[in-house]
Amino acid sequence: MKVALIQQSFKGSKEAMISDSVTKIKEAKREGARLVLLQELHQSEYFCQSEDTKYFEYAKDFDKDIEFWSEVAKDNSIVLVTSLFEQRAMGLYHNSAVVFDSDGKLAGKYRKMHIPDDPGFYEKFYFTPGDLGFEPIDTSIGRLGVLVCWDQWYPEAARIMALKGAEVLLYPTAIGWFDEDTQDEKSRQLESWITIQRSHAIANGLPLLSCNRVGFEEDKSKVLNGIRFWGSSFVCGPQGEILAQAPTDKEVIIYANIDINRTKEVRDIWPFLRDRRIDAYEDILKRYCN
Amino acid sequence: MKVALIQQSFKGSKEAMISDSVTKIKEAKREGARLVLLQELHQSEYFCQSEDTKYFEYAKDFDKDIEFWSEVAKDNSIVLVTSLFEQRAMGLYHNSAVVFDSDGKLAGKYRKMHIPDDPGFYEKFYFTPGDLGFEPIDTSIGRLGVLVCWDQWYPEAARIMALKGAEVLLYPTAIGWFDEDTQDEKSRQLESWITIQRSHAIANGLPLLSCNRVGFEEDKSKVLNGIRFWGSSFVCGPQGEILAQAPTDKEVIIYANIDINRTKEVRDIWPFLRDRRIDAYEDILKRYCN
Repeated sequence: MKVALIQQSFKGSKEAMISDSVTKIKEAKREGARLVLLQELHQSEYFCQSEDTKYFEYAKDFDKDIEFWSEVAKDNSIVLVTSLFEQRAMGLYHNSAVVFDSDGKLAGKYRKMHIPDDPGFYEKFYFTPGDLGFEPIDTSIGRLGVLVCWDQWYPEAARIMALKGAEVLLYPTAIGWFDEDTQDEKSRQLESWITIQRSHAIANGLPLLSCNRVGFEEDKSKVLNGIRFWGSSFVCGPQGEILAQAPTDKEVIIYANIDINRTKEVRDIWPFLRDRRIDAYEDILKRYCN
Repeated sequence: MKVALIQQSFKGSKEAMISDSVTKIKEAKREGARLVLLQELHQSEYFCQSEDTKYFEYAKDFDKDIEFWSEVAKDNSIVLVTSLFEQRAMGLYHNSAVVFDSDGKLAGKYRKMHIPDDPGFYEKFYFTPGDLGFEPIDTSIGRLGVLVCWDQWYPEAARIMALKGAEVLLYPTAIGWFDEDTQDEKSRQLESWITIQRSHAIANGLPLLSCNRVGFEEDKSKVLNGIRFWGSSFVCGPQGEILAQAPTDKEVIIYANIDINRTKEVRDIWPFLRDRRIDAYEDILKRYCN
């Protein structure tokens, strides 16, 4: 099954972003992709670089956005994983991934469970943590374990998706460098981001797709300079083997063929799920053991 | 703090293995190491390639083995992590890591919790799963999260050690290739083994040491040809960055300097522990969610 990841830079407006995404989804379809994964909050800039109530405007058309992307999925007859800013009520917002089946039907929604808050990534101001749990989403091409960005650092999230029968793990994401950091620090950050996600594929014997944004976005509050999103979107197989990877500095659509049936092969001979010590994992549910 | 990992091949007898280990521990001490990690079941061949009751003999001197390695730790004034075959009662055995403080005192014991059983690795015949849980071991140089081999595939194990205050993760291990596998498959296996362990360092912000055996050991039962242990023992830092790595095919002592204080630096800016959704992890305790 061919999948496509669309790695984009910000183009100045929602209209420009949508237009670019639609063009590239059509291209992915022509290339034979059956699933398209978009990057985190692909309709806008990564606005969480500063805390400003004006950005809540971006969430107000959530229902219309859903209608729009449903049409795109249907028009292209493709399974589409979007990442949208959801206004749930006045003053209550989520960072949500919405999945459409190839007939345009809303297949399911995932609300980002782990919300970061670090300099330049002030997400706790914008998004309340998800309350839908780690529930895979069924589509005509398989059961998708959709998680978002910061979730990628948590083996617990990937594990629960796997235990609930996810056949693929998918991460829309937005992560990058500060230019001020040393080259060594940048390398360690990028490598750790790739490594931890590959490890979720390995621990659970599942293919994994991670779609990141690319390019520099300035911090409009001028507190920091801005974020250089490091691209590097990738697809790996159930042994964590890289099947396709995007560059750090270019817009690109990457493609890979994933084989959901390889999970059985890999798990049958390296049967990690068989030997889990579920009798001894209770402390996982604690904040800290002191 | 300088640490040493002793990657060895099997030398035909317990006496030869012990003599080699002691010589190399002395060398590591001369080089300034304060902690030495030995490979899994370092006193013998990897006997789990076949199921034969004669190998239970190897476990009978567990108490004497403890006395012996305690002396070695004391003589060299070094923290020593050993991996021993423990006879707990007649017909009841464990794959146990025993840790000695630099004064020779038995600091603690960990009984391998996840026991594999695959062709060539028939450990379920020999070892009953550990019943001591995931408890770090306090020593004069820090709190050690000692796990063994198959445990390395389980993020749960590393996480619990971290939540209990482990300052370093350590894995004695014995893993290798079958010569019959393709080069691609061998690469995927080695890479996945390195990747999953680096991911535990990353997820928990901890340095990690993994000491594997090296060299070919034939399957005396002649069912399979044997295992070519792939060495590649390594040390990584709390961002998963490789600090030292051994070759795949040579005996070697590798050294690295680890800085336990870097954990705070790394965790303070990438605070994964802060945002864990402990309210939503309950399914981790299930075998499977169906």
